[in-house]
Amino acid sequence: MLIKRFAQNPLITPADVPPSRSDYEVVGAFNAGATIHQGKVLLLLRVAERPKDISSDEQVAPIFDPQTSTIELFRVKNTDPDVEIIDSRSFFYKGRMYLTSISHLRLARSDDGCNFTIDPTPAVFPQTKYETFGIEDPRITKIGELYYITYKVVSGHGIATALLTTTDFKAFERKGIIFCPENIDVAILPEKINGKFYALTRPVPTHIGPRAIWIASSSDAINWGDHQVLIAPKPDTFTAGKVGASCVPIKTPDGWLEIYHASDDNDRYSLAACLLDANDPSKVIADARQPLAQSEADYETQGFYSNVVFSCGAVQRGEAITIYYGAADQCTAAANTTIKKILSTMA
Amino acid sequence: MLIKRFAQNPLITPADVPPSRSDYEVVGAFNAGATIHQGKVLLLLRVAERPKDISSDEQVAPIFDPQTSTIELFRVKNTDPDVEIIDSRSFFYKGRMYLTSISHLRLARSDDGCNFTIDPTPAVFPQTKYETFGIEDPRITKIGELYYITYKVVSGHGIATALLTTTDFKAFERKGIIFCPENIDVAILPEKINGKFYALTRPVPTHIGPRAIWIASSSDAINWGDHQVLIAPKPDTFTAGKVGASCVPIKTPDGWLEIYHASDDNDRYSLAACLLDANDPSKVIADARQPLAQSEADYETQGFYSNVVFSCGAVQRGEAITIYYGAADQCTAAANTTIKKILSTMA
Repeated sequence: MLIKRFAQNPLITPADVPPSRSDYEVVGAFNAGATIHQGKVLLLLRVAERPKDISSDEQVAPIFDPQTSTIELFRVKNTDPDVEIIDSRSFFYKGRMYLTSISHLRLARSDDGCNFTIDPTPAVFPQTKYETFGIEDPRITKIGELYYITYKVVSGHGIATALLTTTDFKAFERKGIIFCPENIDVAILPEKINGKFYALTRPVPTHIGPRAIWIASSSDAINWGDHQVLIAPKPDTFTAGKVGASCVPIKTPDGWLEIYHASDDNDRYSLAACLLDANDPSKVIADARQPLAQSEADYETQGFYSNVVFSCGAVQRGEAITIYYGAADQCTAAANTTIKKILSTMA
Repeated sequence: MLIKRFAQNPLITPADVPPSRSDYEVVGAFNAGATIHQGKVLLLLRVAERPKDISSDEQVAPIFDPQTSTIELFRVKNTDPDVEIIDSRSFFYKGRMYLTSISHLRLARSDDGCNFTIDPTPAVFPQTKYETFGIEDPRITKIGELYYITYKVVSGHGIATALLTTTDFKAFERKGIIFCPENIDVAILPEKINGKFYALTRPVPTHIGPRAIWIASSSDAINWGDHQVLIAPKPDTFTAGKVGASCVPIKTPDGWLEIYHASDDNDRYSLAACLLDANDPSKVIADARQPLAQSEADYETQGFYSNVVFSCGAVQRGEAITIYYGAADQCTAAANTTIKKILSTMA
C-alpha cells in the first residue's frame, strides 16, 4: 500500500471550525499548509465560509470590501438570465465569475499530528483589493528562522499568488503579489540553492499551453524570473487534465522530492510525485508513472466538490512522511507514507 | 487632429521584406519596437512568414524545432473533424491552438524616420523550446548603454514574455522568460526609479479578471515582483474589450506618458494614453477619456487581421512624438503627434 490513511480521517471538518462571525457557516476546512513549529505540527487551514441565510433560489457571493473591512454580499436570483451556475464553488453573472464562499487562513496545532486544536479566530483574513474573493491554499516553507507562506489571492482583478512571511505565526507580513494572474499552486523550496530561491508555480494559460508545473528562481523570494516549464500533463493518463505543485519539496539523498497533484480528463484528482535534481531543481530526474493516491474514501469522493484529494503540505520525520490533504474541497485528512514508497511510484 | 498619419503609409509592407528562406513568403511586417541607435531610427520588426505552397483546403502551422534548428510544417486538412478554423492567424487542432505563420525579429534603419532600409536576414530568430511558434512584438528600452528588449515567446508551452539585451543590435543575449504564461505586451520603463526597474505587463487571466495593464518592479530587470493592477478595461467604452501596454513610457514633466492599446467589444483597436506618477509609476495620474487613434485608413481597416492599430514603439524628439504601429497585423505605419496632444486625450 503506497499510503495509509489515518483511521481518524477526516481529521478536521467544517463543523470543527468556528466561523469568523456568528451569521456565517463554515463550508470547508481544507488545503492546509503544514509545518513543524515549536515542536508541534502546525496546519494553516483554508477556511471557506458563507452566510447562513442563503435560500435555494439564489446565488450569493461574499465579497470583502477593503475600504470598510467588511464582507458585502452579492446576491442574484437563479432565474436571472445573466446567471450561469457552474458548480457548488462558483457561478457566473454577466460573464464574470464569482465564488460562493470566501476563504481565510486559520491555524490548527497538534502534538501528535492527528488531534488538532483549532484557533477560534482567523490567522490571516482578506485585507487588500486583491483578496476580496478570499485567500486560499497556503504553502509554508521554512528557511532559516523565517517562514515563507505563499497563498492564492482571489478578486475581481484575477487569481494570483502572494507571499506572507512570519517568524511566530502571530504577526504576518504581506510581501505583495509574487506571481501575477493567473498563477496558483506555488511552493518555495526549503533551501536556497547556489544562492537562489526556487519556486514551483502553476500558470493557467488562456490561449496556448497546458496547465503544467513551472519553476522560477529569485534572489529574495519576492522578485522572480527565469521561468521554465518543469512537468506537463501527460495525455491519456491520470495527469491528462492538469498538474500543479502540492507540498513544499522535501530534501532527500536522491534530490528534491515533490508531491504534486494531478487531475485526469474527468477532473478526478490524484497525488503524484517527482524527483528534481538536488543542485538544479529545474531538472526532472524522475516522474510519476502511477498515482501515489487517488480519491477513494467516502470523505474524498463526496463533499463540497467531489473526487478531490489536494495537498498543500506534508511533514517529514526521517523516512516517514505524513501528507495532510484537502478531501472533496471540504475536510482535512492525512495519510502516512515513506520516501521509499513515494520513490517507487516514479520512473 | 490628434495624430497625423505619414503620407507615405504604410512605410513597410510584407513585400518589402525578404523572407528568411526562399520557399517562404512574408505575410506581416508589423508591431515593431522603435528606438534611436547611432543617430538613426531603428525598428525591430516582427516579421511573420509561412511556406508559399499552402493550398486553400489545408491549415499549416510552421513550427521551429530547437533540436534541428529548422522549421517543420504541421499540416491538417480543413475537412478534418478535429480542425477548427478561428481566423487568418490561428486554428485549433484537437483543442490546441496553432499559428498559421511564424515570426522572427528583423531590423530596419532610417535616417529620416520614414524611409527604411530593411536588413536582408533576421536579427533574432526562434531558438529555444519556448519560441517554437515564433517570437513577436518587441519593445526596446534603453537604460545607460544597454538596450533591454522584451518580446513575446510563443510555443506549445504557452505565450510568455522573455528578455533580450544588446548594446549594438548585432549580438543579442537571451535572459530567459521574465513573465510566465500567459503574459504579453511588456514595456520596461526607460529609467530606474528609486533604484528599481518598472515594467508594464498584460496578464491574460483565464477564470477571473479582465485583460488589464499591470505593473511590476525589479532590481535587475530579470526577476520581477510586487505585481499591481494599473489600468483595467472600462465597460461600454472603446477600451471595454482589453487594454495593454504599447510603447515604452516617455518621460515628461508631468509624469510617465504611456501610449497603450485598447480594443472594444467588437475587437476594434485603438491607441490611448495615460500618465503615471514620475516617482511611483504604479500610480495613475490621468487616463484616456478618448482614443488617441483608431483604425481608419485602408491599410488599418483591411489586412491580415483587420481593424488593428497596434504600436510597440515611439520615438521622441522634444515635444514631437512619432508613433510606429502595426496596421491590420500586416504593415508598419507611422503617425506624428505631440506630448500636448496626447495629454489632451486624458482626464
